[in-house]
Amino acid sequence: MNNNLNALFEPKAVAIVGASVKELSIGNVIIKNLLHYKYKGPIYPINPKVDEVRGIKAYKSILDVPCEVDLAHIVIPPPFVPMEVENCGKKGVKAIIINTAGFKEMGNDGKALEDDFLARAKKYGIRILGPNCQGIINSDPEINAYCNFTFTFFKPGYISVVAQSGGVGAVIMQAFHDMGIGMRMYVSNGNASDISIPEIIRHYGEDENTRAIVVYVESLDNPKEFLEIGKEVTAKKPILAMTAGRTEKGAQASRSHIGGLAGDISLEHIFRKAGMLPFSNQDDLCNAAKTFASQPIPNGNRVGIITNTGGPSVIAIDELVTGGLEVPPLSDKAKIILKETMFESASINNPLDVVATAGAIQFKSAFDVMMDEVQIDSVYVNFVTPPFVDCESVAREFAMISKAKKKPIVCNYMTDKEKWVGTTNILKEAGIPYFDFAETAAKALAAMVRYNVIRNKDTGKVNVFEDINKDIVNNILDKATRRKQEVLTGEDVYSILEAYKIPAANWGIANNSNEAVSLAEKLGFPVVIKADSEEIIHKSDVGGVAVNIKSSEDVRKVVETMKNKLRNVDLKFFVQKFMPPGRELIISAKKEEGLGHLIMFGMGGIFVEVYKDVVFNLTPVTDTEATEMLDSIKAAPLLNDFRGKKGIDKAKVSEILQRISALVTDFPAIKELDLNPIFAYEDKVCAVDARIIL
Amino acid sequence: MNNNLNALFEPKAVAIVGASVKELSIGNVIIKNLLHYKYKGPIYPINPKVDEVRGIKAYKSILDVPCEVDLAHIVIPPPFVPMEVENCGKKGVKAIIINTAGFKEMGNDGKALEDDFLARAKKYGIRILGPNCQGIINSDPEINAYCNFTFTFFKPGYISVVAQSGGVGAVIMQAFHDMGIGMRMYVSNGNASDISIPEIIRHYGEDENTRAIVVYVESLDNPKEFLEIGKEVTAKKPILAMTAGRTEKGAQASRSHIGGLAGDISLEHIFRKAGMLPFSNQDDLCNAAKTFASQPIPNGNRVGIITNTGGPSVIAIDELVTGGLEVPPLSDKAKIILKETMFESASINNPLDVVATAGAIQFKSAFDVMMDEVQIDSVYVNFVTPPFVDCESVAREFAMISKAKKKPIVCNYMTDKEKWVGTTNILKEAGIPYFDFAETAAKALAAMVRYNVIRNKDTGKVNVFEDINKDIVNNILDKATRRKQEVLTGEDVYSILEAYKIPAANWGIANNSNEAVSLAEKLGFPVVIKADSEEIIHKSDVGGVAVNIKSSEDVRKVVETMKNKLRNVDLKFFVQKFMPPGRELIISAKKEEGLGHLIMFGMGGIFVEVYKDVVFNLTPVTDTEATEMLDSIKAAPLLNDFRGKKGIDKAKVSEILQRISALVTDFPAIKELDLNPIFAYEDKVCAVDARIIL
Repeated sequence: MNNNLNALFEPKAVAIVGASVKELSIGNVIIKNLLHYKYKGPIYPINPKVDEVRGIKAYKSILDVPCEVDLAHIVIPPPFVPMEVENCGKKGVKAIIINTAGFKEMGNDGKALEDDFLARAKKYGIRILGPNCQGIINSDPEINAYCNFTFTFFKPGYISVVAQSGGVGAVIMQAFHDMGIGMRMYVSNGNASDISIPEIIRHYGEDENTRAIVVYVESLDNPKEFLEIGKEVTAKKPILAMTAGRTEKGAQASRSHIGGLAGDISLEHIFRKAGMLPFSNQDDLCNAAKTFASQPIPNGNRVGIITNTGGPSVIAIDELVTGGLEVPPLSDKAKIILKETMFESASINNPLDVVATAGAIQFKSAFDVMMDEVQIDSVYVNFVTPPFVDCESVAREFAMISKAKKKPIVCNYMTDKEKWVGTTNILKEAGIPYFDFAETAAKALAAMVRYNVIRNKDTGKVNVFEDINKDIVNNILDKATRRKQEVLTGEDVYSILEAYKIPAANWGIANNSNEAVSLAEKLGFPVVIKADSEEIIHKSDVGGVAVNIKSSEDVRKVVETMKNKLRNVDLKFFVQKFMPPGRELIISAKKEEGLGHLIMFGMGGIFVEVYKDVVFNLTPVTDTEATEMLDSIKAAPLLNDFRGKKGIDKAKVSEILQRISALVTDFPAIKELDLNPIFAYEDKVCAVDARIIL
Repeated sequence: MNNNLNALFEPKAVAIVGASVKELSIGNVIIKNLLHYKYKGPIYPINPKVDEVRGIKAYKSILDVPCEVDLAHIVIPPPFVPMEVENCGKKGVKAIIINTAGFKEMGNDGKALEDDFLARAKKYGIRILGPNCQGIINSDPEINAYCNFTFTFFKPGYISVVAQSGGVGAVIMQAFHDMGIGMRMYVSNGNASDISIPEIIRHYGEDENTRAIVVYVESLDNPKEFLEIGKEVTAKKPILAMTAGRTEKGAQASRSHIGGLAGDISLEHIFRKAGMLPFSNQDDLCNAAKTFASQPIPNGNRVGIITNTGGPSVIAIDELVTGGLEVPPLSDKAKIILKETMFESASINNPLDVVATAGAIQFKSAFDVMMDEVQIDSVYVNFVTPPFVDCESVAREFAMISKAKKKPIVCNYMTDKEKWVGTTNILKEAGIPYFDFAETAAKALAAMVRYNVIRNKDTGKVNVFEDINKDIVNNILDKATRRKQEVLTGEDVYSILEAYKIPAANWGIANNSNEAVSLAEKLGFPVVIKADSEEIIHKSDVGGVAVNIKSSEDVRKVVETMKNKLRNVDLKFFVQKFMPPGRELIISAKKEEGLGHLIMFGMGGIFVEVYKDVVFNLTPVTDTEATEMLDSIKAAPLLNDFRGKKGIDKAKVSEILQRISALVTDFPAIKELDLNPIFAYEDKVCAVDARIIL
């Protein structure tokens, strides 16, 4: 099978199997679009019943086409698709876009048809986009391929889009078009029976003219591939990612329209782990993409503000600061220059208010100064077009400074674009990203700053622990798997922790009250006793837990009582040192199918229950990431010295996070693992309750 | 002085004092704008040096104008303004827009000029807009007054805007224009030396053709007036309000450009107390205003969703649910109808997916069903224009149903508007609020639902407490004021609380160790002892606090030690019962100049320090509002029975909030009051530390 997508994105000839003379049919619209977009290659309508479609000679079968065809659309009803794929194979077609719907998403019959055409495609090494999809668009002027039934004819640009939902893809494409900016490539791959979104991302990553990649997904067939390719590509260029279904109702709707698992909360975690920029709305995403497409990435978070109006600069600062930017003061050198060049009423600071009457001379000086200031990484401009200023000459200075691409510039351009056509065109042609609102411009700049942090980030290293004992864990899990045991006993759980050097309160197993007493005496009072049996899942509910037991006599009483009450054949007694309360932490791991585990960290009790103050990361958790997790909860200050209380041993907690990550990575059979609570003290940390589910 | 603003907003004749023949001058632009907007009255340029401006006869002085003039612009330099105001007075002018800048904002000389023209205006009963302002616009077709130097010529509509910042006002005005919707009136009043924003809001409130009011303010000269008029008007129509300067940097910038107090966090509190809808960005605000301008207010939060594409409906649901809307299931009756009318592939639920191929028949049925469903209050529509559907006929059905105005409708309209001109025009003419993104449409609808809650809300009543003793408080405060005392002693603070029946831990005052011992014995051990002296502000710092004292002997020791160490002449000993820890609460009051007090409520300790989990309300706090405050903190569940711990006496806490509100309202001399902490138990509540600053 060929692994590159060139035939799909750069077809030398396109056939439309199911071309139609009916104006409102997909088999006609695609040909119309190819013609309208001035596709550079030959178009071959395939239809046994007509001689031509839209003035182009039609063929009865793809096998009749006299020349080579590397890309074919198939728009005929599902039952006929496999045979046409076979014919495409015979013809030597390299890629097929199946626009037709009615396969896997319609149940078993559809699934059978899908399997059939996939097998045939595989035989011939054909790659399939779809079925149930829109297709692709490539604006490369050498190609001009509009192999799609959508309606937005974008000009060439630097943004490439891949959307699982054609509806959302079309909205994003149209938004860029309405903004007056171009795109490079577009694809929506529908059912994704073969060509996957990660593959497309890789293709965009390798395309020199794609500067920013936009991704919309609601579910992932192969999250690991998505994560890995995402990491690879974000090192080179930004990926702006969005998902939907974050609310329960939204997730339901998603499941119903794409017919699968969706709205999984972990998609955002995957975006973050991969270094993608997550967005929660299309508007912000499109505005950021527009900026990435034309501006260099800033080297830091310090912004210089130039404004010729007051209020909008207050709004801008609010948004910039909220987005993590700093507004440093100007240097003395800059102030000396500006005192010469600015009007008297100007405010020579950062923000630099050049005042409404400022013309080209004032703006030029402001631009020059901001570009020269070493403590400034990017420039934000509020530009209103006063009727008493020659705005075109201001715009020309703007274009000039932007051309040098020394630092990124964004602009809140406040005007009636229909009246200030000249000024607008100068800004547009210079590729200056301008926006109607201060907030919008500020947020777009903040997204660039976020990407700069990501691309420069040292993600740390995955520690390999040499002191662990995999055999012990292997044996326990093997035994449990063989017996189809889902919830591990306390003995097993704590043995696994011990094998991975994850500290827990001292413990032991007793078979009877005598053993329990001597064990308790060895551990030291007070102790906790738990009934330990495969059959008992909820120990507290059946009276299988007793805490804070202070004497040998009480140990004996507790054990006898449990024994009489529970009577399970495999009943043993888990005896553990009862620890004084420390800072209560939670660490858990949850398996994410096809991906690894999602590790959660937080403080216990009200912190998690009331404030949901927890953070997540996907395995493998590196040393840097583990430390970041500790620092990222809102309650992070409570882990340090706080109100006279000593801080906890954070290095140890970070190590536990990494060891848990190693454990669940080594043993993917572990479905859920909870250490809840962990008690953390100034000098030590230990789990006091733990659970593992397979 | 005339109290209505008719001469300003509905001028019968406009003079421009300082009219100019220079194209790029304000005195020319205003005349150009009046002509362009087809102002219905006569225009009188005033300029001693020219015979005409833009073809209109000019007069040497306003006194030479042969007819009546009710509105004049003044655009001449500051020193000449007072005399021209005088002339306007002689002429019988009723309102003046002073566009000229350079008054109060430039220091004392400017202030003197401003006082001068204000005195003259007052003498003649003239109302002044400005100085340093843009002016007004009124699109009433009977008037067409464009008394402004801005550049956006909006068509008549139902939104009226008042903006303290002309820059922000212009942006908002242009945004509506770009959206293709009209406005009713516009004003930016600059320095606001006379006509205030609240007056303008009242004027808009009384205007029948204003359906929604948009307000942008950064500071308020008279917050009380703003609050009261706001309350009055929001009962009739929605006020969409925004401020800026929420970040420290933003507030600084605001102070520097408007030259006063700004970015005060309490502006948002005022918006809420007044029943205004606060917005944090201009985009959301404009989109909501657009919807209010054309749609009826929904009667509840239950939305019906119609969609012809999958992905955007997931995004919409996320945003709708986040915005507080519910998506109820369809009735069986509705489903029966839809099974008849929809295509087979349609999804008959809420969201109702009519599928991409749906035409007018399917959409009509969908609309009809949603309008008839009693459990649905509003309708959200995702409408993409598939190239294979007759979209104009769909739009006609849309227009028809919208005309009935039975329930509000918003639409996420996904198309290339340049190509689907016919469809777009039908929707536009029908006044259907459509948006480019699902999120945007959903947020606009959510804003309407929020207003419905506000207009129907019972804000409760302000309790009058008969059991209080104002005289005691009066005496204490009088004495303190006379002695310029800022921090009250413990004795005074607790006497004030007692006078207002605000419960505190039992206490008394001792002059020496003997008295302290017998007091402690009376209160019961353990006790707290605090050094009480006007001179000691930070008691703990000087060793003036001792807690948990368990015996008479220890009381004596503590008092002697403090006495020897502190030696203040007025030194007394505040002895208080040491309470066992209860749920720790904080209530505080902070004076807001010209407005009343801002009351804060929260839980103490980490809740306020780490999570900033506090809520605010402005005095007077009603019974309903007090209860709401308790329920609004994130930690609210902890006030009820929680994890086996009994809930606290919430009614008592609510009463304390109201009593504190009454106290600070009765005695505005109180600048700050803190009860921190209050210990709340199952059956009682008492302050254990309190502070009052004058």
